[in-house]
Amino acid sequence: MESSGQSPGQSPVESQNTSRRESTTAGEATNDTQRASDYVALSVETLGVRLGDIPAVSERVGGDPANWRIREVGDGNLNLVFIVEGTQGAVVVKQALPYVRMVGESWRLPLYRAHYEYYALVRQARYAPGVAPEVFYFDKPQALIVMEYLYPHVILRRKLIKGERVAELGETLGRFCAQTAFRGSELSLPSPEKKADVGLFSGNVAIPAITESLVFTDPYYDAEMNHHTPELSAVVARLRGNVALKAKAQRMLMKFTANTETMLHGDLHSGSIMATDASVRIIDPEFSQYGPMAFDLGMAVANFLMAYFSQPAHRSADELAAYQRWILEVIAACLDSFDAEFQRLWQTERRGILFPQTLFEDQQHASDVACQALLDEIREDALAYCGIEMHRRVLSLAHNADFEEIIDTGLRARLETRNLLMGEALIVNAAAYTKTTALVALAETHNAGTCWH
Amino acid sequence: MESSGQSPGQSPVESQNTSRRESTTAGEATNDTQRASDYVALSVETLGVRLGDIPAVSERVGGDPANWRIREVGDGNLNLVFIVEGTQGAVVVKQALPYVRMVGESWRLPLYRAHYEYYALVRQARYAPGVAPEVFYFDKPQALIVMEYLYPHVILRRKLIKGERVAELGETLGRFCAQTAFRGSELSLPSPEKKADVGLFSGNVAIPAITESLVFTDPYYDAEMNHHTPELSAVVARLRGNVALKAKAQRMLMKFTANTETMLHGDLHSGSIMATDASVRIIDPEFSQYGPMAFDLGMAVANFLMAYFSQPAHRSADELAAYQRWILEVIAACLDSFDAEFQRLWQTERRGILFPQTLFEDQQHASDVACQALLDEIREDALAYCGIEMHRRVLSLAHNADFEEIIDTGLRARLETRNLLMGEALIVNAAAYTKTTALVALAETHNAGTCWH
Repeated sequence: MESSGQSPGQSPVESQNTSRRESTTAGEATNDTQRASDYVALSVETLGVRLGDIPAVSERVGGDPANWRIREVGDGNLNLVFIVEGTQGAVVVKQALPYVRMVGESWRLPLYRAHYEYYALVRQARYAPGVAPEVFYFDKPQALIVMEYLYPHVILRRKLIKGERVAELGETLGRFCAQTAFRGSELSLPSPEKKADVGLFSGNVAIPAITESLVFTDPYYDAEMNHHTPELSAVVARLRGNVALKAKAQRMLMKFTANTETMLHGDLHSGSIMATDASVRIIDPEFSQYGPMAFDLGMAVANFLMAYFSQPAHRSADELAAYQRWILEVIAACLDSFDAEFQRLWQTERRGILFPQTLFEDQQHASDVACQALLDEIREDALAYCGIEMHRRVLSLAHNADFEEIIDTGLRARLETRNLLMGEALIVNAAAYTKTTALVALAETHNAGTCWH
Repeated sequence: MESSGQSPGQSPVESQNTSRRESTTAGEATNDTQRASDYVALSVETLGVRLGDIPAVSERVGGDPANWRIREVGDGNLNLVFIVEGTQGAVVVKQALPYVRMVGESWRLPLYRAHYEYYALVRQARYAPGVAPEVFYFDKPQALIVMEYLYPHVILRRKLIKGERVAELGETLGRFCAQTAFRGSELSLPSPEKKADVGLFSGNVAIPAITESLVFTDPYYDAEMNHHTPELSAVVARLRGNVALKAKAQRMLMKFTANTETMLHGDLHSGSIMATDASVRIIDPEFSQYGPMAFDLGMAVANFLMAYFSQPAHRSADELAAYQRWILEVIAACLDSFDAEFQRLWQTERRGILFPQTLFEDQQHASDVACQALLDEIREDALAYCGIEMHRRVLSLAHNADFEEIIDTGLRARLETRNLLMGEALIVNAAAYTKTTALVALAETHNAGTCWH
């Protein structure tokens, strides 16, 4: 979902329809649309006719649907994404396609991923209000979500490539990750509700399977869809020859597949974040699943580190050092805000079955040491996930524009190598970098380009 | 399910009915009984009439149902258990009651636990053939399972109190735990099947909730249903004052509730094991859930340690040392057989998405170090679960006969104290005892009774 164009000019009002749907939480969301249940992909030509009689859409957009300005702006990986503008405002319409758009119809992908995106969006709105786009309408058989149009937000990855700053970026992300991690877990939720939700999300098999292979396994062998900058062959051979690295990556995969601690965003990279200079929003949770608390945090940090290492190709010498320094500050703020917010929620909202007050505060025993021990574990696992994400984005199927747009493959490979080697250090030796200062120092050392041996 | 009486005198033959049911795996098991769907508890008087026309039962028992010898032998905690004998043989009929029998109708407990027991039994038969009782018939609405009558097996706990030995006891348990842990995980199962099964088992909320509170939390505060030997007050105060202990127990609870690595038995104590001098069978998986690979192993070892510490009250001086030595050998065999069988399956049946051959053997890299690292983690967590089980069986609601039948409360408290203090050492410092010899030495030290300070 890339975004541009006019502001909708109104603050979105919750529709009756949406309110009712958002109350569906632990069971499968119902769909009471009167439309045909056979899936048909939308197009710019048909969207107005198909959605024009739905009040949650038509009242928000305004005017004759025949006159709506409709643009398809999907970034091409998986879905159709339309911006629909009328006399009153604008909405985004996102519809899943039954295959992976970037690969072709041969790679089938179930439409139900849109259902999990919807489930995730309504839960994120509860756990971390104001960060995910608001949902106005959901049509389950059509795998279609109508949601808030974010304007003038643009994809954060573009801003990082352009060298633009965003206020409170790390803080907002760290808080979002902490709030969703804590409030989606049995530290907070009643156990029956959390367990029913795990059951609901267990229906989502195809999407986690993509992450499982593309992220954790493909980088470390000659997988069919892999590609990488040719000059990286030596470092790729080094990584694949590192048995401890591969074993650790697989141990992290095991935690990812079998640890249902909390509801994840599941794909929290800088292409899933939209921002202005002062506003940060998080979109596209269609890879949502129950998983380890450390996962989203690690993914987010990895994408900042890749932005950091790619900067020498995007910045002039006079801007480079200051902008790279700012990215490291964002990383530090993200990690430290996660901990601070998690600790705050631990003290104020710990109402689940885990670490109950009966064992600690009610016996005049502080629980802050237990909280810190859990945060230390989360930090260490987050760094390992971070290193894995840094690898797969350079070696597996889906790459980042941060590196991919560097035309000079020699320069690209040099910068990617810094990124790969830091990733290796994080995966095999995460415990050494759990202090934020140690992590920042490691990034600076690799950025100096002297670590290749 | 306690067992005594005549042998059925025939080897049980798989019924059509059962075969069909056992093929139900990843979806919800169907129930095609023609009987009324309203639940009615069985009784000795009604059982023959209600089950006499079901071929899977009547052909196996034989004769006129009016002449069947029917005894109710449930041990009183949760269920009705009948032994039904006729002219051809015998079966066990187990039916869930809608409340906790040992507490009363005020503690409601859903009948669906019988469904999970059935699901677990058919999976255990596949993962570790010949250990769980064979299932002949399942009536879902009646929460009723007709299964193999084990004879002349008796509950292992009784044998341990009597000082009887069982050949290959530790080896059989260790292998069972390894086979169910490995084959129920994504090391072995196709991911879609495993994830669908996690979804199926996520419907079981009430039973895990019992374990969560009774095992992990109640021992460490003044929970309503707790009871303990009066002379233990000082050691109980010590444990509740150990904040690191409570934090670790809660961290293990978090892993228990949120780690769906494999399908557990869930209640693998010596009352869930039936044995002759040379045969070991494992019954009663109604607490089955997806959980950590370490859990069943830790529970089993804990129950042997409790048998070990209780022996001075049950043995004469001339038998004591040799029998205690034998129990320690069983523990060592259980732990070491778990590792050996897990390693064997790792090398021969690793067909899931975790630690795939593509990353190791196909690149001429051995994966045995990765296997050992995982086993080390499992061992450490198993010891922590072990320590927690050693605590809750002395401090929480459900106690063990090993200690409970010691009339002299002064002696009982001295032996329970040894058990509690070793449990404390295991919980807070599991990593120090991961070598089997270190664990055995720790048990011997505590058994000497000099650790109370």
